[in-house]
Amino acid sequence: MNNPLKIVADENMPALDTMFNGFSVTRVAGRTMSAKDVETADVLLVRSVTQVNEALLSRAKHLKMVGTATIGMDHLDQAYLLDRGIPFFNAPGCNAEAVVDYVLAAIHNLLPEDFPLRGLTVGIIGAGNVGGRLQKRLSLAGVNTLVCDPPRALAEGEEGFTRLDTLLSKSDVVCLHTPLTTVGSFATYHMLGEAELRLLKPGAVLINAGRGPVVDNQALSRVMDQRNDLIVALDVWEHEPSVDKDLADKVALGSPHIAGYSLDGKLRGTYMLRERLSELLGIAAPPPLRELLPLAPISSVTVTESASVLDVISVVYSVVSDDRRFRRSLSAVNQAASFDLLRKNYPVRREFSTLTVNGVVDPYKRQLLSAFGFNLSPVSTYVPSE
Amino acid sequence: MNNPLKIVADENMPALDTMFNGFSVTRVAGRTMSAKDVETADVLLVRSVTQVNEALLSRAKHLKMVGTATIGMDHLDQAYLLDRGIPFFNAPGCNAEAVVDYVLAAIHNLLPEDFPLRGLTVGIIGAGNVGGRLQKRLSLAGVNTLVCDPPRALAEGEEGFTRLDTLLSKSDVVCLHTPLTTVGSFATYHMLGEAELRLLKPGAVLINAGRGPVVDNQALSRVMDQRNDLIVALDVWEHEPSVDKDLADKVALGSPHIAGYSLDGKLRGTYMLRERLSELLGIAAPPPLRELLPLAPISSVTVTESASVLDVISVVYSVVSDDRRFRRSLSAVNQAASFDLLRKNYPVRREFSTLTVNGVVDPYKRQLLSAFGFNLSPVSTYVPSE
Ligand SMILES: NC(=O)c1ccc[n+]([C@@H]2O[C@H](COP(=O)([O-])OP(=O)(O)OC[C@H]3O[C@@H](n4cnc5c(N)ncnc54)[C@H](O)[C@@H]3O)[C@@H](O)[C@H]2O)c1
Ligand SMILES: NC(=O)c1ccc[n+]([C@@H]2O[C@H](COP(=O)([O-])OP(=O)(O)OC[C@H]3O[C@@H](n4cnc5c(N)ncnc54)[C@H](O)[C@@H]3O)[C@@H](O)[C@H]2O)c1
Repeated sequence: MNNPLKIVADENMPALDTMFNGFSVTRVAGRTMSAKDVETADVLLVRSVTQVNEALLSRAKHLKMVGTATIGMDHLDQAYLLDRGIPFFNAPGCNAEAVVDYVLAAIHNLLPEDFPLRGLTVGIIGAGNVGGRLQKRLSLAGVNTLVCDPPRALAEGEEGFTRLDTLLSKSDVVCLHTPLTTVGSFATYHMLGEAELRLLKPGAVLINAGRGPVVDNQALSRVMDQRNDLIVALDVWEHEPSVDKDLADKVALGSPHIAGYSLDGKLRGTYMLRERLSELLGIAAPPPLRELLPLAPISSVTVTESASVLDVISVVYSVVSDDRRFRRSLSAVNQAASFDLLRKNYPVRREFSTLTVNGVVDPYKRQLLSAFGFNLSPVSTYVPSE
Repeated sequence: MNNPLKIVADENMPALDTMFNGFSVTRVAGRTMSAKDVETADVLLVRSVTQVNEALLSRAKHLKMVGTATIGMDHLDQAYLLDRGIPFFNAPGCNAEAVVDYVLAAIHNLLPEDFPLRGLTVGIIGAGNVGGRLQKRLSLAGVNTLVCDPPRALAEGEEGFTRLDTLLSKSDVVCLHTPLTTVGSFATYHMLGEAELRLLKPGAVLINAGRGPVVDNQALSRVMDQRNDLIVALDVWEHEPSVDKDLADKVALGSPHIAGYSLDGKLRGTYMLRERLSELLGIAAPPPLRELLPLAPISSVTVTESASVLDVISVVYSVVSDDRRFRRSLSAVNQAASFDLLRKNYPVRREFSTLTVNGVVDPYKRQLLSAFGFNLSPVSTYVPSE
């Protein structure tokens, strides 16, 4: 490029230099970004702390694109952008793989070791970016799934979708991945109340990594008092960052809304905007994301026959460590502040896809691990180390 | 051998066939072993459930050796065996490496990530099979150690040994590895009481994987109420299997007396008796233990620069998972029974030495990991993947 495009970006957006290599990148504090800062920008990249509206953009005459490396777009004045004809993009699903990693780690930690996952039915409520990917990985693994997603069923037809009550009463594991909505016929607020929770099968596993208030947390607490067969994992909480400690004591796994917090997911947010820019302006696409990501701390393992799927998962992600940190934060003087601090200082976590697994011979384990996203080296190239 | 030696062994002794390959092995239930069972034995191998005395051995005229795959020998009538001139052996230190693994895992989990361990002082109280090995690994790693072991100081001279009060006031990490003794000038019962605990440095880490009552648990609980700077890991408890729940809530890591529970340690017990047999009868030594052990679930990892020592340790052993199981057992209706059950059903755990680590370039990390017992592949042979 002779005159490289001028990118003005929130200074806290990760991996800007890597993802926008070859462009002129100017970094600005997101909270105090001004009309002057963005005046000469060709591309504006923001996070949720910046309000993108007329006040900010009035002087930006060359602006060709606004991107936000977030899932939500509440901080964009979409009417104004549409009016000015400035294309804008978010990064939907950028951290969906991380949430699916979390769910699979939770399931494998909560089920008895080497339990034949294939014999189970996993019910997925909400099959969008996260739930859809979860369904895909489980189906590839040969695991039976039921999906409840009335908005999709309405658009795509009922086939392949299951009613909520049927799903709840037939699933061994129930995973919630809906947004939080309070109005309309598909409102999800308190979608699982006392009556719905009572439908769960004996010994069922319930995982909420969607939004806290989709489950009536008080009802859950009450039902768990009477049904100690239920096994519950909560990453999201009603009224978070405040957490009901009684409920937290009852759940098998708790965490501070970090299911999606992989490094890969964070960088994918920036990367997705870089992809939109290429498409928009017809310029060369960036190299594959994988090549732009830093190396994972552990890049490969060689396993032997006795390694379980959980053994492999735990090399990449320890949901038990997240649970530990979360529980310790509950007794902090300011529990809510600790919750936020855990999110802010979350350790670097990588996705399953960063790990290469050597030595897996058993065809069932191969199918499971590769469906879950691990890279499996071919059986033939495996030379056991004496 | 034309007439293979006849081994009569407790049927629950692990890996008998592997360790005593080539011998004639007869398995007997340990609890009900009778004089008739051992009548024709050349070698008798027992666990702690069998009383070895005149009643059991009176008819055993060919007996050349008695071995117990345990650390204690309370179940052997030593006077009787000495009188009959039958050599007897136990397996001291068979699980010492596992305890050291536990201690190193605990230290790395409790200190801030990538804390320069080399700048710390680790105080070791009791430097026998376990403490001695811990000191050796830490010294090889370049970590400063202080050792308090008055019985050894008496036998070997004061040099290299530190007084208890000096050690307590100068160490960043204090590890207890003494036996429990209630009489004599070196009695260890309540060796750390309120006064001693108050000597600990601000922010000190205290680890007890020796015997519970060596620390006055009530005093510890009181001191921790006033000093929330202390970081405590307890694998052993006063009055175990009953656990003081208040104290358990305060410790950073708790576990049910499993520090030594590696598979390697259990099999090493049998192996040590096999070695004694070779020495005693001048017959061929067994192959190295390593060759007789089953493959570890994860045999090697390839790491990159960002991998911490804790990342590598966690591939082999998760002290956090032990802590999790322990905490969940505390709320069981019968806490003490749960404690015992956790020990009985302890998952297969391997020692650090079963893992080969590829890709470690940093000389400090190499020194640390190899001092800790991991196998490091040479730097030169490491080919980064693509
Ligand atoms: N825990 C975390 O760290 C984390 C990370 C990412 C996303 N999330 C949350 O997970 C949820 C899902 O995220 P996503 O990216 O998959 O969203 P998405 O919008 O892509 O998918 C949501 C799906 O839910 C369906 N849905 C809506 N109402 C429903 C109802 N009443 N019953 C069943 N299904 C319904 C929608 O049709 C859609 O298919 C969101 O609430 C998001 O905030 C959490
Ligand atoms: N937590 C576990 O799973 C586990 C496993 C193995 C051993 N242990 C326990 O760990 C302890 C140590 O085991 P070991 O095999 O190293 O025993 P050991 O007999 O080989 O060593 C004990 C050392 O403590 C020293 N000692 C005795 N009295 C002392 C005192 N008053 N002050 C300081 N040092 C003193 C002795 O001189 C000796 O060097 C034992 O109590 C054993 O039961 C626990």
